[in-house]
Amino acid sequence: MANIKAYAAHDSEADLEPHNIERRNTKDDDVKIEITYCGVCHSDIHQVRNDWNNSQYPVVPGHEIIGRVTETGKNVEHFKEGQLVGVGCMVDSCQHCKHCKNDLEQFCEEGAVMTYNGPDKHLGGHTLGGYSEQIIVNKEFVLDIPDNIDTKAAAPLLCAGITTWSPLSHWNVQKDDKVGVIGLGGLGHMGVKFADALGAEVVMITRSPEKADDAKRLGADEVLISTDQEQMSEHQGSFDFLLNTIPVGHDLDPYIQLLSIDATMVLVGAIEPLEEMHGGGLIGGRKRVAGSVIGGIKETQEMLDFCGENDITCDVEMIDIQNINEAYERVVNSDVKYRFVIDMQSLKK
Amino acid sequence: MANIKAYAAHDSEADLEPHNIERRNTKDDDVKIEITYCGVCHSDIHQVRNDWNNSQYPVVPGHEIIGRVTETGKNVEHFKEGQLVGVGCMVDSCQHCKHCKNDLEQFCEEGAVMTYNGPDKHLGGHTLGGYSEQIIVNKEFVLDIPDNIDTKAAAPLLCAGITTWSPLSHWNVQKDDKVGVIGLGGLGHMGVKFADALGAEVVMITRSPEKADDAKRLGADEVLISTDQEQMSEHQGSFDFLLNTIPVGHDLDPYIQLLSIDATMVLVGAIEPLEEMHGGGLIGGRKRVAGSVIGGIKETQEMLDFCGENDITCDVEMIDIQNINEAYERVVNSDVKYRFVIDMQSLKK
Repeated sequence: MANIKAYAAHDSEADLEPHNIERRNTKDDDVKIEITYCGVCHSDIHQVRNDWNNSQYPVVPGHEIIGRVTETGKNVEHFKEGQLVGVGCMVDSCQHCKHCKNDLEQFCEEGAVMTYNGPDKHLGGHTLGGYSEQIIVNKEFVLDIPDNIDTKAAAPLLCAGITTWSPLSHWNVQKDDKVGVIGLGGLGHMGVKFADALGAEVVMITRSPEKADDAKRLGADEVLISTDQEQMSEHQGSFDFLLNTIPVGHDLDPYIQLLSIDATMVLVGAIEPLEEMHGGGLIGGRKRVAGSVIGGIKETQEMLDFCGENDITCDVEMIDIQNINEAYERVVNSDVKYRFVIDMQSLKK
Repeated sequence: MANIKAYAAHDSEADLEPHNIERRNTKDDDVKIEITYCGVCHSDIHQVRNDWNNSQYPVVPGHEIIGRVTETGKNVEHFKEGQLVGVGCMVDSCQHCKHCKNDLEQFCEEGAVMTYNGPDKHLGGHTLGGYSEQIIVNKEFVLDIPDNIDTKAAAPLLCAGITTWSPLSHWNVQKDDKVGVIGLGGLGHMGVKFADALGAEVVMITRSPEKADDAKRLGADEVLISTDQEQMSEHQGSFDFLLNTIPVGHDLDPYIQLLSIDATMVLVGAIEPLEEMHGGGLIGGRKRVAGSVIGGIKETQEMLDFCGENDITCDVEMIDIQNINEAYERVVNSDVKYRFVIDMQSLKK
């Protein structure tokens, strides 16, 4: 074990501040990673502030981790010292249940171990995330980062990327499908990029006309203003797939009306509760509402490889770790295009 | 045109009573049918009582029609005089939109013409249903009834049957799938029979322990009492498919918890509105909630053929048309096992 510099919150009221943490020694199946960049996800804020009533302090957030391998255990063949790697939302799972065997570790029957605030199998206590100098992770949960993409802008792929890629991929979005991405934030901007790269006809659906130019720059073919009844009527029954990234409760019915027969709207926001829905809206067109959460490790690697092949990264704003509390306020106010990434070199300041 | 005996309601407060109606003459594409049996569907009552605020009086209900061909138009080759046939919820559609071409007439872009209370293309006014001596229907909406099944018990297949068959078939329920049928009424009892005949492991899910024996007689392997928390916990995450036939608003969350990863619950009841749902319930297992309504004509024929091959009919209680108002009260009170069928010979009394 070693003392590692990190940033942590001590209780739900506290700002993040410098902290020393312990990491385990590198075990036979482990990869030790020096963290170079870490993305800032809204979940980080929820956990720091105990919004979900399950936080364990100190909370060291961060599950959009990019770094370089500095040491490997004796069973590790795939990763070599100096290699560029990533770690996302999970650092472990049982590896033997049917879901793990089906590459769906996010649905592990024993519970996937989240990168922070999960049960630490090695040191006891809870896991500590990527707002730190280094992390040690089982090789099965370490991802290859393509060499050709902008490393710092790749960090949010590990959460915002896979969260939007997974439903597009699982529901088999294809060339020329009409895909609506609802909400233009950290998730939505990746949904647009992916759907566009998959060859879909992409419509950004937003309440905010001022987001139209940016949506088109990101790859949207069209922008549909959800408060404009006339526009909404014109698109009624026309979408093959809807990716709903709105993170707060809202009326789903206007979007269900946009779906064509047999089409699905996938929710990726942790909305509690979903508001009342018009039952006839589903029944009258054999429509479906579904949920999706992150993605499995194999699928995450496929997403990263796709990003390498298609030169896709996130639109990011770089910050030093010392500015993290200010960044949190801006995330809460949706004042970031579209994701903050921490330059972890700043920890040395 | 001819004067035909029927039973009709004159306004939303009125009982059904004898009525003379007009039918068109048999046109080139038409099949004229002498009605022998007509099932009683809860929708009949909703329309008679104007529960959906779209009834046009007089309402002649009835869309579970069995009869014999008495005349055919010159373009009709498939049907011959004396042949046993059925008519379900639809008597026409545009026949040229993409959904009609895909055998999904129920989703016709111009609107399928319902068997009663739909716009009558031939005589103007609205269509009049099966509580009558005869009906004249376009050949594309007439179905073959297998010779080997009990004719009177076949009538409810045309609505209760296809409504439950369609989702089981469309979502590809297979041998050994664990299928839950929620609610044991006119729809639920057919869901159990079909799922059982498809080789699924069938669990009847009901609030009513007294329905257990009957559920097992109908084909359920097990009965799960939905108010028993311990039983519900034991089955959590284990169902490949849920067919929810509950016709009134209810909490969907306990049933969503029963679904396994990637599994779907299909609603076939016209529930308005669907109550608030726990968003995490969908997201935490990539689960789906969908709707389904009746089925296309091709699919209805497939269902009828399956019934012939597997000797499946509905459990029915026969009534004379003179008892229809009393039967309605019993349907409203769920006091029928499981569907009333009118012997249309009684119209001659």
